[in-house]
Amino acid sequence: MKLHSYFRSSASYRVRIALNLKGLSYETVPVHLLKGGGQQLTPEYLTLNPDGLVPVLITDDAPPTTLMQSLAIIEYLEEIHPQPPLLPEKALDRAFVRSIALAIACEIHPLNNLRVLRYLVRNLKVNEEDKTLWYRHWCEHGLASIEKILVRDARVGKFCYGDSPSLADCFLVPQVANAQRFECDLSRMPTVMRIHETCMALDAFVSASPPKQPDAEN
Amino acid sequence: MKLHSYFRSSASYRVRIALNLKGLSYETVPVHLLKGGGQQLTPEYLTLNPDGLVPVLITDDAPPTTLMQSLAIIEYLEEIHPQPPLLPEKALDRAFVRSIALAIACEIHPLNNLRVLRYLVRNLKVNEEDKTLWYRHWCEHGLASIEKILVRDARVGKFCYGDSPSLADCFLVPQVANAQRFECDLSRMPTVMRIHETCMALDAFVSASPPKQPDAEN
Repeated sequence: MKLHSYFRSSASYRVRIALNLKGLSYETVPVHLLKGGGQQLTPEYLTLNPDGLVPVLITDDAPPTTLMQSLAIIEYLEEIHPQPPLLPEKALDRAFVRSIALAIACEIHPLNNLRVLRYLVRNLKVNEEDKTLWYRHWCEHGLASIEKILVRDARVGKFCYGDSPSLADCFLVPQVANAQRFECDLSRMPTVMRIHETCMALDAFVSASPPKQPDAEN
Repeated sequence: MKLHSYFRSSASYRVRIALNLKGLSYETVPVHLLKGGGQQLTPEYLTLNPDGLVPVLITDDAPPTTLMQSLAIIEYLEEIHPQPPLLPEKALDRAFVRSIALAIACEIHPLNNLRVLRYLVRNLKVNEEDKTLWYRHWCEHGLASIEKILVRDARVGKFCYGDSPSLADCFLVPQVANAQRFECDLSRMPTVMRIHETCMALDAFVSASPPKQPDAEN
């Protein structure tokens, strides 16, 4: 499989974690989101993904199939390589795990995407300080909500669900990494941070992290 | 089941369509997002969903379970009531259907959510005209990308996938309804609009639409 990925993209990071947890090998195809106006916007890349976003997974099927959207990719990996499972067995528990992932994928990350921050600056003339406040606002609000959801639920263990990593952790860790990079206040989220720490003790998470990627920069 | 819903909420609309397609009966609990500062922000509602968002589905289990996030809810409905299916059988096709839903759930809708529009106006002092341009930008950009994805894929039929409604259509129709309400330019999306029209000939979609809800207003 080939993963079109950018080292700092948290959506790419989610898929890298899932691939590692499943023990699946893949080739990284770096897509630099900033160089030359953004390699995700070249005609060649837009043929792969008309939305101009990473990640894209190219499968080993004949002919190879192009998969988009990190959650759709991870659900696909779960279906074709069920071991180790990233979703629990029972439907109610699966819904819980997916809802944590989606609270990150839908309520936090889209607001802090590169193209959204660019729109704020270029079209709405938002200054650097207000852009940073915007970033932190959605990150802190969203992670604080997830903290409340996690702290009250008996299904939470060492990880978001029980004592082994799930799809929810694949989403949580990259979002915390982004929050740390933008110096968000994470003091109100002890459960989120405890789970993040537990994950970052595992090689599957560490080797998926931005600094470990072939296209990493300082 | 009880669905905490607001008639105009497109995330609620998605779940209403899925419930109707599955032939599942439910009770609507209206949550007015505007009245009295927003009923989704009352302490009582925040106990249900700490993120302060609709929809929330309360299951018929003993004790009842609270489910959040429209896609997690619809995947749950698919798992406990597999007929008629809203996802195809093959993993690659399921990924395709999910990626359409997620391109809407992650790339369009979050940017045009009530609380985001409020932040633009209240915190960033964006005027009405620029707010409308923002809304239309993400809607038109996102739906144009989906058009390109649909128009090139042989799996697209009368609906987003084949000739019966899928999870992707549950997401497409409410997003088009929002786009029409905000007078977006939909002329570049003939496939999207053709599928929307096909869906709106079905009672499952029509009876889930905002004007048909018990809490509907003019």
